Amino acid sequence: MSGLIVGLDIGATKILGVVATPEGEVVAEVRAGSPAGGDHVVAAAADVVARLRSASGERLDGVVGVGIPGLVDTAQGTVRHAVNLGVDDGFPFSARLGTATGMRVVLDNDANAAARGATTLVGHQDLVYLSIGTGLAAATVLDGVLRRGARNAAGEIGHIPVDPQGPACECGQVGCLETVASGSALAALWPSTDQPPAQALFHAAAAGDRKAIDVRDRVAGHLADAVRLIALTVDPEVVVLGGGVAGVGEPLRVSVALALADQATGSPFLASLDLAGRVRLVPQHVPVAALGAALLGRDDA
Amino acid sequence: MSGLIVGLDIGATKILGVVATPEGEVVAEVRAGSPAGGDHVVAAAADVVARLRSASGERLDGVVGVGIPGLVDTAQGTVRHAVNLGVDDGFPFSARLGTATGMRVVLDNDANAAARGATTLVGHQDLVYLSIGTGLAAATVLDGVLRRGARNAAGEIGHIPVDPQGPACECGQVGCLETVASGSALAALWPSTDQPPAQALFHAAAAGDRKAIDVRDRVAGHLADAVRLIALTVDPEVVVLGGGVAGVGEPLRVSVALALADQATGSPFLASLDLAGRVRLVPQHVPVAALGAALLGRDDA
Repeated sequence: MSGLIVGLDIGATKILGVVATPEGEVVAEVRAGSPAGGDHVVAAAADVVARLRSASGERLDGVVGVGIPGLVDTAQGTVRHAVNLGVDDGFPFSARLGTATGMRVVLDNDANAAARGATTLVGHQDLVYLSIGTGLAAATVLDGVLRRGARNAAGEIGHIPVDPQGPACECGQVGCLETVASGSALAALWPSTDQPPAQALFHAAAAGDRKAIDVRDRVAGHLADAVRLIALTVDPEVVVLGGGVAGVGEPLRVSVALALADQATGSPFLASLDLAGRVRLVPQHVPVAALGAALLGRDDA
Repeated sequence: MSGLIVGLDIGATKILGVVATPEGEVVAEVRAGSPAGGDHVVAAAADVVARLRSASGERLDGVVGVGIPGLVDTAQGTVRHAVNLGVDDGFPFSARLGTATGMRVVLDNDANAAARGATTLVGHQDLVYLSIGTGLAAATVLDGVLRRGARNAAGEIGHIPVDPQGPACECGQVGCLETVASGSALAALWPSTDQPPAQALFHAAAAGDRKAIDVRDRVAGHLADAVRLIALTVDPEVVVLGGGVAGVGEPLRVSVALALADQATGSPFLASLDLAGRVRLVPQHVPVAALGAALLGRDDA
C-alpha cells in the first residue's frame, strides 16, 4: 500500500486516469481512447490502471474509484443508460474491472465524481457542480455529503421543463432546461466544425459579432436560470460551472455572473443572495472527475 | 423534568401550542390569537406555555421549540421578514421568550418545523414539505437532517420564475411559481368570502362546475410542476403537501397526483420516477408545525 489514490474518468470519447496523494495532488496522469461495449471498456480501463502503475512506480493494489456517465447503482457496481459507451444495462462493471486489475472498484456517476473533485479543488464542502456538456446535470454535495436522491435523480435539473414552446427533449418532455442550456443547445444555435462550438461562440462574441453576443447572452441567461433554481432549492455555498462548455474558461463564468446580476435587478430578495458572487469556474486543465473518483474511492475505503 | 416535549406554532392569525411525548404523541393542545408586535407576541406565546403547563399538569421546564414565519437566525434566536406578525428584524425573540417562560427557546422557521413534524407523522426521514399557503415554500429534510442552505434560502422555490408573462411577484421578479401555485394565486382565480377559497374551488369542481374544474386543474398542474422541480433537484423519498391549501384534504393530493401522472405521459424517464405515487398529504387535524417545533427542540436539547 502506497497511500496514493487512483481514479478513472471514463467518458464517451476518452478515459482519463490519475494517481494522486490522499490530499488530492495529482502525481501521474494517463489518457486513452474509449472503445465501445462493456468488455472493451473494462479492458481499456484496466490498461490505463496498468499504465498508471508504471507511471507512478507503485503497486497500486487498494481501491480504484471510477466515474462513468449514466445511472449508477453504487451498491451493485453497475450502470444503466451508459448509451454512449455501449455498456449494457446491468453489465457487472465493477466486478469485471476488479478482476482485471486486482483492485476493489468504487463506481459512481461521472458528475458525482467531478463534484467530489471540485470540493477539494475549489475548497468548499457545500457545492453544486453544474455539468454543462452534451446534456445539463447537477451533482450535489451538501455539507460534505454527496446527495444522490431517493431514486438517483438528484441533480437531474436538465429535465425540468422551462419553455412550453421549446424543442422536444429526448427524455420525452418538451422544452427541458437542457434543450436551451447545454453544449448541445449551444451547438445548435452556433454550429462550428473547426473548433468546439462553445469556444467559437465566445470568441466571436468577444470579437464583437452581434449575433454571437446575442446567442451567448441567451445561453448564459438560461444557465443563470439553472443557478437560480439550484440556489432556491438547495442553496449551496457555491455553484461550480463544469463540463465541456466550461472549457471556455473565465468568459463563461463572467457571462453567467452578469446574467445573474441582471436577474437580481429589481429584486432585493434575489440580490441579497448574491448569486453572481457565488458562481465558480471549475479549475482548468485539472482532471476534476478522475481526481474526484479517486477521492470517492478513498472515502469508501 | 417530565420527559414531555413542548412546541409552539406561531402564525399570522393564531398561536398553537402542544405538549407531546418524545415519540410525538400529542397529550395537550392550546390555541390563542396572534397579537402584533414582538413584545405582544412573546407575551401571548408565554401565556400559551403557561396554559400548556396547566393542561398537562407538568412543570415543563426544559426546552420549548418555536416555529415562526420568516427568515430565522437559529443561532441568534432572531427572525427577519416576520412582517405579518409585526416582529421587528433583529428582535431578540428567543431571549425574551426564554425570560418570560424560564425555558430554553429553540427557534426555527415554521415550514422547517412542519417538515420536522411530517417526518414523524408521515414516517419518512427523507422528505420535502411543500407549504401551500399565502406563499409557496418548501422545507427539506434529507436523511433526517434539515437543510437550511448556505443563506437560509433552501426551499425558497416559490420565487423561481416560471412564467415570463405571469404576474409581478412581491419579491420583485415576474411570474414566480408562487404567483401561479399558492393559496393567494388560487384565491385570485377563485374568490370566495363564505369559505376558504381552496375549499370553495374544490367543492365547486367536485360538483361539476366546468370553470372550477379548469381552475383546479391549472393550479394542480403548477403544484405538480413544483413537485417535479423538487424531485429533479433533491429527489426526496416523498413530497408532503401541507399549508393552508392542504386543508382541502385528499382531493388536493389526488388532483396533484393526476397532474403528475399526466406530465409523465410520453416520458419513460419521468414515469420511472413515479412522482404521482410519492406525493403525500400532511395528516389532517394534527398540529404538524407545533409538534415539529417540539421535536426540533428535543433534537437540540
